Amino acid sequence: MAQNYSFKYFTVQFPAENPYVAHVEINRADKMNAFFEAMWLEMRQVFNQLSEDPSVRAIVLSGAGEKAFTAGLDVKAAQGGILSSDSNLDPARKAVHLRRHVLEFQDCITAVERCEKPVIVAMHGFSLGLAIDLSTAADIRLCSKDVRFAVKEVDIGLAADIGTLSRLPKVVGNFGWVKEVALSARIFGAEEALRVGFVNSVHENRAATIAAALKLATLIASKSPVAVQGTKEILNWSRDHSVQDGLRYTGVWNSAALQTGDVPAALLSGLQKRTPTFEKL
Amino acid sequence: MAQNYSFKYFTVQFPAENPYVAHVEINRADKMNAFFEAMWLEMRQVFNQLSEDPSVRAIVLSGAGEKAFTAGLDVKAAQGGILSSDSNLDPARKAVHLRRHVLEFQDCITAVERCEKPVIVAMHGFSLGLAIDLSTAADIRLCSKDVRFAVKEVDIGLAADIGTLSRLPKVVGNFGWVKEVALSARIFGAEEALRVGFVNSVHENRAATIAAALKLATLIASKSPVAVQGTKEILNWSRDHSVQDGLRYTGVWNSAALQTGDVPAALLSGLQKRTPTFEKL
Amino acid sequence: MAQNYSFKYFTVQFPAENPYVAHVEINRADKMNAFFEAMWLEMRQVFNQLSEDPSVRAIVLSGAGEKAFTAGLDVKAAQGGILSSDSNLDPARKAVHLRRHVLEFQDCITAVERCEKPVIVAMHGFSLGLAIDLSTAADIRLCSKDVRFAVKEVDIGLAADIGTLSRLPKVVGNFGWVKEVALSARIFGAEEALRVGFVNSVHENRAATIAAALKLATLIASKSPVAVQGTKEILNWSRDHSVQDGLRYTGVWNSAALQTGDVPAALLSGLQKRTPTFEKL
Amino acid sequence: MAQNYSFKYFTVQFPAENPYVAHVEINRADKMNAFFEAMWLEMRQVFNQLSEDPSVRAIVLSGAGEKAFTAGLDVKAAQGGILSSDSNLDPARKAVHLRRHVLEFQDCITAVERCEKPVIVAMHGFSLGLAIDLSTAADIRLCSKDVRFAVKEVDIGLAADIGTLSRLPKVVGNFGWVKEVALSARIFGAEEALRVGFVNSVHENRAATIAAALKLATLIASKSPVAVQGTKEILNWSRDHSVQDGLRYTGVWNSAALQTGDVPAALLSGLQKRTPTFEKL
Amino acid sequence: MAQNYSFKYFTVQFPAENPYVAHVEINRADKMNAFFEAMWLEMRQVFNQLSEDPSVRAIVLSGAGEKAFTAGLDVKAAQGGILSSDSNLDPARKAVHLRRHVLEFQDCITAVERCEKPVIVAMHGFSLGLAIDLSTAADIRLCSKDVRFAVKEVDIGLAADIGTLSRLPKVVGNFGWVKEVALSARIFGAEEALRVGFVNSVHENRAATIAAALKLATLIASKSPVAVQGTKEILNWSRDHSVQDGLRYTGVWNSAALQTGDVPAALLSGLQKRTPTFEKL
Amino acid sequence: MAQNYSFKYFTVQFPAENPYVAHVEINRADKMNAFFEAMWLEMRQVFNQLSEDPSVRAIVLSGAGEKAFTAGLDVKAAQGGILSSDSNLDPARKAVHLRRHVLEFQDCITAVERCEKPVIVAMHGFSLGLAIDLSTAADIRLCSKDVRFAVKEVDIGLAADIGTLSRLPKVVGNFGWVKEVALSARIFGAEEALRVGFVNSVHENRAATIAAALKLATLIASKSPVAVQGTKEILNWSRDHSVQDGLRYTGVWNSAALQTGDVPAALLSGLQKRTPTFEKL
Repeated sequence: MAQNYSFKYFTVQFPAENPYVAHVEINRADKMNAFFEAMWLEMRQVFNQLSEDPSVRAIVLSGAGEKAFTAGLDVKAAQGGILSSDSNLDPARKAVHLRRHVLEFQDCITAVERCEKPVIVAMHGFSLGLAIDLSTAADIRLCSKDVRFAVKEVDIGLAADIGTLSRLPKVVGNFGWVKEVALSARIFGAEEALRVGFVNSVHENRAATIAAALKLATLIASKSPVAVQGTKEILNWSRDHSVQDGLRYTGVWNSAALQTGDVPAALLSGLQKRTPTFEKL
Repeated sequence: MAQNYSFKYFTVQFPAENPYVAHVEINRADKMNAFFEAMWLEMRQVFNQLSEDPSVRAIVLSGAGEKAFTAGLDVKAAQGGILSSDSNLDPARKAVHLRRHVLEFQDCITAVERCEKPVIVAMHGFSLGLAIDLSTAADIRLCSKDVRFAVKEVDIGLAADIGTLSRLPKVVGNFGWVKEVALSARIFGAEEALRVGFVNSVHENRAATIAAALKLATLIASKSPVAVQGTKEILNWSRDHSVQDGLRYTGVWNSAALQTGDVPAALLSGLQKRTPTFEKL
Repeated sequence: MAQNYSFKYFTVQFPAENPYVAHVEINRADKMNAFFEAMWLEMRQVFNQLSEDPSVRAIVLSGAGEKAFTAGLDVKAAQGGILSSDSNLDPARKAVHLRRHVLEFQDCITAVERCEKPVIVAMHGFSLGLAIDLSTAADIRLCSKDVRFAVKEVDIGLAADIGTLSRLPKVVGNFGWVKEVALSARIFGAEEALRVGFVNSVHENRAATIAAALKLATLIASKSPVAVQGTKEILNWSRDHSVQDGLRYTGVWNSAALQTGDVPAALLSGLQKRTPTFEKL
Repeated sequence: MAQNYSFKYFTVQFPAENPYVAHVEINRADKMNAFFEAMWLEMRQVFNQLSEDPSVRAIVLSGAGEKAFTAGLDVKAAQGGILSSDSNLDPARKAVHLRRHVLEFQDCITAVERCEKPVIVAMHGFSLGLAIDLSTAADIRLCSKDVRFAVKEVDIGLAADIGTLSRLPKVVGNFGWVKEVALSARIFGAEEALRVGFVNSVHENRAATIAAALKLATLIASKSPVAVQGTKEILNWSRDHSVQDGLRYTGVWNSAALQTGDVPAALLSGLQKRTPTFEKL
Repeated sequence: MAQNYSFKYFTVQFPAENPYVAHVEINRADKMNAFFEAMWLEMRQVFNQLSEDPSVRAIVLSGAGEKAFTAGLDVKAAQGGILSSDSNLDPARKAVHLRRHVLEFQDCITAVERCEKPVIVAMHGFSLGLAIDLSTAADIRLCSKDVRFAVKEVDIGLAADIGTLSRLPKVVGNFGWVKEVALSARIFGAEEALRVGFVNSVHENRAATIAAALKLATLIASKSPVAVQGTKEILNWSRDHSVQDGLRYTGVWNSAALQTGDVPAALLSGLQKRTPTFEKL
Repeated sequence: MAQNYSFKYFTVQFPAENPYVAHVEINRADKMNAFFEAMWLEMRQVFNQLSEDPSVRAIVLSGAGEKAFTAGLDVKAAQGGILSSDSNLDPARKAVHLRRHVLEFQDCITAVERCEKPVIVAMHGFSLGLAIDLSTAADIRLCSKDVRFAVKEVDIGLAADIGTLSRLPKVVGNFGWVKEVALSARIFGAEEALRVGFVNSVHENRAATIAAALKLATLIASKSPVAVQGTKEILNWSRDHSVQDGLRYTGVWNSAALQTGDVPAALLSGLQKRTPTFEKL
């Protein structure tokens, strides 16, 4: 199926030298890539399309401009919205509207996790609030030396509600550190992020981070897409289930996946010491 | 509501320079703060009261005296108790008494986790057995250089049963290390605790550790209590549920919490570059 | 009960100087200890027997020969098997056969986790694919400096399906790192394994790693077996359940376990400053 | 917000005498209301819109024509589709396409469960296969005397995969009966459906069933929408969670919902013995 | 331990002819046994005491007066309380107070479920709202012919939040019926309650219902208390867990319970065809 | 694969007129088919073999002799065993032996549930204790008019621990009835069993019950084995998981199963109005 990747707030490119890799960039550099509603709705569309596009095998997500991956929620744009409106409703009715709004916002972030292809996020500069929510829904996190992270939400009077509090403790195995940064909203940098396992590696600057992400994406894209997509799915399922349920689900999943032509193709090219090619998926 | 904080084994103080912060200290220094039943029952009372006291926003827990945060269970006091008594009961009836005893003991430790305000524990010197159970029920762990930790229970012939085995693997993302220290009962120090993520930071001595804990508590207490208490609650819920259940619970929780006056207060003071004040909770 | 430990692909020894410790070695050095079906079926037998043998209190698992702990699945032996056979079956019937095969293979690996005695795995040289599945089912992982780890499965076109994807994220608290090594199949060494918490410690060579494992096993074997086996069981249960379910299960477990004679024995020998002895289990 | 309810395969009416009730009818009587892909995609749209339409408080779902509520899947239309296409793909790649297809189909059925307003389904005549999937996603099931139910899927060689097997055992507390009808695909009638609790009541014919459904919907629509929508949500959540998790979620939900003006309105009209009116939601 | 059963709103009697049976009665007949806060707090005390009193083996709960088991919440008494107070708080802060209130109320009802001895509830006359919450926390429900049940909460503008919505679907295997009575708040009688399995049996009048409950309690009290209390606990645990988790928990529980002297006592008296006696618990 | 069905305590027959149906009979009529250890170990073997035998599509389980399906545990045989032995062990060590024993016993019963082919149990006469454990692990339960059921375990001083307490509440949707029969150990008959949904149907005598079971098994065996085995598996999985997890698992399962040749075979024979034939599985 031919995909149309013309979006307003996101650019989607397919670098010539990286077959099967899509490079998505948040494209609102003049506002430090801060998000408002139309943006997260569009982002869901982007990742839903990439998820089913058979010519895509791995994805890099970065932010345009030197200043920020994303400064988070565009508070000014949000103020005219859900929080202020409908002020004549009683608190229970207002709660219904707020809940619907939050659940849809969450669903747009979850699109990154739900995407069947691995997503590597390359962060630099200000990476605040929503940047953490978004990156924990991705699979692998890289950053540049100049990055400034913060779970910023308590500083605007609210508990982070679009993913960080549910996903960060399952991404980083240091619950005390998660609590500290979530309760204090303090800034932390690349070195600390690496030490606690929030990012996989640190790079010189924005360009080097994106280059490293593309290189890793290219490596992953060279593998069997049946194997790669199955691996992402089973890892995410296992995070949320007991080991026994994880094993059982894996057995059912692989009962179809092992019938792929990719296994003999991979074995044969291994013996012949050449690079295998795999059909699209 | 006016709270009465006069206890026998715990001191509760409200440092003048740290508004909204309660400093709880285990107060049995002559016995290395070792616990017996009356103490853990009282500790539950302390944290239940602090949980609902609107003038409290963050809590520091430390141990009196230079020698120990707590040396753990006061084995001598325990010997006359549950383990020896009722020797003419059959093993099944004895099991009922033991189970009730363990579940109530667990519940006293869980009072720290259930407390709606963040709890920062400042440990020094001997911090053995029950010290680990207790600190994993807290939110953030700090320690001094001289600390000596051990999951001591196997050395007295039992599996730790008041929290360590259930919580430590969810606090520290290194299951092999957890198994090693729990199965060997070996001592470990501040540096190792920091490396594996058991503590957030290490300080020069007992005084410096408490000072750092109070400073962090003060920072957290300066944030919106609606945001802080919601953050603690959602993080603990998410630890025990799938990401989808975590997101849904968050949406329901915030449908009320987002209606707080703290959000506009925080936004406004952000624009005006001044410190916001928030109502009690 | 007297146990018979005569196996074809595994040696089981009881070192004279390490009472209560069993040393299991994968014994197919000429093929880099690569596994085929008869081996994993036998391995299940080995660990089922050790689990119930009252003269065993801790187990070390290593691989014979200097080259490899295990190079993983013996692909050549596997090729004539499940993947190629029954080619005239429809994909749904083939899936049933594959699923049964995977579930039984998983069960053989799970025998290591199910074993009631702690298992310390000592790895060196090539430790690929199945080596990771196997070691995550053990309790504690040690390795030598020369070790070469890889979650190799994507390189042969499949998602790892006998344990790595379900257990590795619960062993190592760095979900991004798990995804990277599982999606890229890249080699990683001892230092990286230590840093992310995959192994507990690194040793000079194969012999030193095994020696360290035996020493740790001997230490654990000197503790009360009631305490040690209860600790392993409760830690594994807690990994897969909420904290509340973990605490409740612990209370029920210990209602019998606390009635052991090991508690007074341990307390008394503690007062008398001598080494306690415990009855077999 | 003004809603546009012009659909192709479904009619949506608002009966004048039943304020706040929407009557949805499957509108393909000439084909016994058999479903094909465009229909279930449209049905999702219908229920998504009704879910957020503040002028709707309860929904009745029925089928046009005297012959059938729905005869199930339109097998002829399906044959040209997912099952036959892409025959040159390997079984693993085909599995990916099939899984995506099934998951989207399931999501369209789940739209009925996800709809925030109660859905009462009125069934008559042939109600086969998909009719069971669909009705178990609704809240209340009524039927006419002439109804002919069957979990028909095994008769076309497949396990029911769009909801029956996951929901029917949680709707009907007779697991043996569920297994019998699912494994044998046998027809069962109104009387048996009533006896096992699959339907709430049986009515003379199609018209009487729809009339009874509209009457019940009108009764429910006369209650506080805050109370009604909360009740549906909490009942569905509780089905999938432990009692403790159900209670906790309820507490969080009601912390906003109890602040509604509907509680004083209901209490006052109770005292004044008149019918309360509630604001839209 | 000697228990003191002098309460204000509940009478606790030990009928001479029914050894080991406690009869608890709600004692506010002039107000149709409607509940206000002091009553549910006291009820928790009653059941906490009975739970640990070794001379109690089974409990009957009924309501005084001919008119009602309980008419539910005393709305007049509640109006001056939590819902109206603190009106100057913002909705987020008010939500905190409401949630704390609901959770404590729930906990008082849960005391009946948590009670280690079986509780048989005997209902008659008006049994509305809280009567349903309360009775689903009990083990066995009996009623008289004149009973009038209703899940009344939607009629006062709220979703039932102290247990009915979490427990009723797990007590009665007819989810459609549960939804109907919860969404419509309609009255239902003894015959319907029996048909759907909400009550175990129906009796002529209040006196006959209580007599039948006492008879059943006496029968249960004649059995081994180790067996009876274990059976209640395991059934409640199993309701909230998978079959595998239920089996495992049972195995751990019985590893202590099977060591009771009650098993040989029961076997011996079986052979000797006489009634066994069992020690207290 | 050719199967050898020569057993000591069970007969396995393949009735000529019922292709693909296996009839298993408990064969110890002189002792009312009471079970001892060698029998349940053998029963696991029987069902493990039937599970993988491609010529078997449905199974009927009955008891030899007119008196009893099974009178339950052979208490006399059990007395010399696990409960009395090892009397010099401390209660904690004894608990380990008891737990291992119970878990293996449970696993033998679970073999019936784990068996991939549907199991219909035909009960008559005394069907006590273990009869209930066993039959709840089966898929469908039939009985004769003369059947006498009882959850007998409390009468010998123990909580039923090999399946009844975990499975019966999930088989029968009447939790109060389950508690009553489990706590009182009272006898109940065919009519009551039918009313609460414990059995699917009641028949004149033992012969008629077995005939009905064989007829139902033959009907099920005439369906696609891919569809039938998938239906059993998904129903059992769904019982233990949330609806969302059930749907997801179903989607993964069917991604392979829908590729069977049985779907076109069933569709074609449906159009041609003839009986389809399906390949073995």
